[in-house]
Amino acid sequence: MKLPDATTLLLERNDDVLHITLNRPESRNAMNLIMLEELRALLAAAGKDRSLRAIVLRGAGGHFCAGGDIKDMATARRDDQAGQARINRSFGRLLEEAAAQPQVLISVLEGAVLGGGLGLASVSDIGICLANCRFGLPETSLGVIPAQIAPFVVRRIGLTHTRRLALTAARFDGIEALHLGLVHFSEPDVPALEQRLASSIGQVLRCAPQANRRTKALLLASSEQPLEDVLDQAADLFAEAVTGKEAAEGTLAFVQKRKPGWAP
Amino acid sequence: MKLPDATTLLLERNDDVLHITLNRPESRNAMNLIMLEELRALLAAAGKDRSLRAIVLRGAGGHFCAGGDIKDMATARRDDQAGQARINRSFGRLLEEAAAQPQVLISVLEGAVLGGGLGLASVSDIGICLANCRFGLPETSLGVIPAQIAPFVVRRIGLTHTRRLALTAARFDGIEALHLGLVHFSEPDVPALEQRLASSIGQVLRCAPQANRRTKALLLASSEQPLEDVLDQAADLFAEAVTGKEAAEGTLAFVQKRKPGWAP
Amino acid sequence: MKLPDATTLLLERNDDVLHITLNRPESRNAMNLIMLEELRALLAAAGKDRSLRAIVLRGAGGHFCAGGDIKDMATARRDDQAGQARINRSFGRLLEEAAAQPQVLISVLEGAVLGGGLGLASVSDIGICLANCRFGLPETSLGVIPAQIAPFVVRRIGLTHTRRLALTAARFDGIEALHLGLVHFSEPDVPALEQRLASSIGQVLRCAPQANRRTKALLLASSEQPLEDVLDQAADLFAEAVTGKEAAEGTLAFVQKRKPGWAP
Repeated sequence: MKLPDATTLLLERNDDVLHITLNRPESRNAMNLIMLEELRALLAAAGKDRSLRAIVLRGAGGHFCAGGDIKDMATARRDDQAGQARINRSFGRLLEEAAAQPQVLISVLEGAVLGGGLGLASVSDIGICLANCRFGLPETSLGVIPAQIAPFVVRRIGLTHTRRLALTAARFDGIEALHLGLVHFSEPDVPALEQRLASSIGQVLRCAPQANRRTKALLLASSEQPLEDVLDQAADLFAEAVTGKEAAEGTLAFVQKRKPGWAP
Repeated sequence: MKLPDATTLLLERNDDVLHITLNRPESRNAMNLIMLEELRALLAAAGKDRSLRAIVLRGAGGHFCAGGDIKDMATARRDDQAGQARINRSFGRLLEEAAAQPQVLISVLEGAVLGGGLGLASVSDIGICLANCRFGLPETSLGVIPAQIAPFVVRRIGLTHTRRLALTAARFDGIEALHLGLVHFSEPDVPALEQRLASSIGQVLRCAPQANRRTKALLLASSEQPLEDVLDQAADLFAEAVTGKEAAEGTLAFVQKRKPGWAP
Repeated sequence: MKLPDATTLLLERNDDVLHITLNRPESRNAMNLIMLEELRALLAAAGKDRSLRAIVLRGAGGHFCAGGDIKDMATARRDDQAGQARINRSFGRLLEEAAAQPQVLISVLEGAVLGGGLGLASVSDIGICLANCRFGLPETSLGVIPAQIAPFVVRRIGLTHTRRLALTAARFDGIEALHLGLVHFSEPDVPALEQRLASSIGQVLRCAPQANRRTKALLLASSEQPLEDVLDQAADLFAEAVTGKEAAEGTLAFVQKRKPGWAP
């Protein structure tokens, strides 16, 4: 993959892993229209790269993302309802696309994880945060609503927790985020955070690339489609996997007590 | 809103907040037919009052609600299946209506929270309990079933926990209720409970009234409708909100570093 | 019920409770084709026995189940995709049937609870494990996918936790399983495990048999069907229950302050 140009994102590729850093530290990486478009384009390009196995998403300057950059996003006129709806919906598209990203998506959360930032944090396969993060859905305390965000938070942590958070604009920390099931790990400091990221990447890379892609697609289908349909599809996916190259290598490595070597 | 008459409920209105107290302490506030009808009528009337922002539901005499008052409810003859089904379904209507109440619904739980009481506790936006509460679904141990209740408990805490509770009639306390996600806060004593209630009301009142109504409707839709449909609707709701008066006041207050003043 | 013959299962019936022990300890009770067929036949026969109220499922030799016995299952040729899909789907049928078993299903988990074993553990009404169990979805690290398993794990513990576990093949212990909501109890040692099992069986037997069957069917419907439909059906189920023999006995026993005596 040739990485697309991006002015609001820092990109770094290490072999099978793409590191994306939201890079507008002067506004705690608030999402503006350019960042939204650059991120959507990048994820779409990355999705087609079969050699890429994991994507790490984080923010520059000690914050993940403080939400939508209202100022900047208001290129549509304040009173232009159709324009406002279009821009808002586009952020929801980003979340839908990120949720379905074929690679394993890892979010690394520091500082502010607010509004749209909390939405982005809700679609990762592995979520790692600092215990002193500040999470929250501040929208209704500002007179607006967490429109594209709330449905993803409901899917992440359930209706019961989301309704309290969205209707009180309450802030919460990483330990609470772990309790709510929003993240998988809460770490006390940056070294522990980096170590958890490294070990998580290591675990992902020990899994077979195509098996992981198929499994992720199956998991997403499982939470939306009727059980019977999913199981029928799953049987076909299993048959493809078990008669394929990865299963042969996996079985051989297991018998020979060595690490399997996966081809892209 | 003119408060409707009620013989089984104590009502008190403080500005934007309506306090409802189930008031049959001699039977631990067991739900009889009159209470069921009075509560449904009250919630319907309250729902139309745009100036009302939160509803607090609790019980008199140190208990929330010990379930359905079987004795009293059996005005239908024991062998009249159609009549029994009709009464039972009516309790489910109460839960459906309370779940969809446009105001923020706060339940304050003390003592017995059993059967139908646990159902009522399962539809709040904010649930606060005492650690020494006694929760449970005793129905099958009495030869009946948690018919209108169980579906709301499944939606609240998931199938896995509900199946054990409903098939064993096990009792559990407030700390377990917090672990299960049935409530948001478990407090050690009454002063802490009242303090949590006051701070929760304070948080709700800092949020914009119309934004909260729109957000609650969106959250309820999120847990029932396909994601794509919800996001499309949400974009229109966002556009209405962001071009409206509350967003203007919210933005201005934010810039001026003052508390916003919300109109009803 | 006449217990069907089984070469891979140990069976023992104590009054209302059937104890099933997966019995291939030489391979940590890995599921082979014979075991799969014997278990499906046994559960089908047990389901028709109205006098049976609970089923306890566990493994011999200190392990629950280490997953599918790939070696043995490969009676279908490695390259026979249709055959592989058929066998795989059959395991999903077992999980579907076990999930809908009319009796209360209790799983007792020790040692390895991997792959298909984790799937089996995900459909119980009451799950009890040892704290030192080893849970995991190792499939993708072996080049295959948790095809029939993952949808049941998603239903058990939600998409967020399942996606991390399935895409990293991470192992976890009983304390984590309790935190994830995969089991209801994690016990420190075998005596505590046996005591928890005995007390859980005791709780189940105090509940009315037909009421428990009706409630379980209602709970399963609650997690798949629209709320309104479920509540309408539930009202009819309630009317049948409340006008039946169990409700009469339950009410009488309650008034007389004695334990109810349930007929099968």
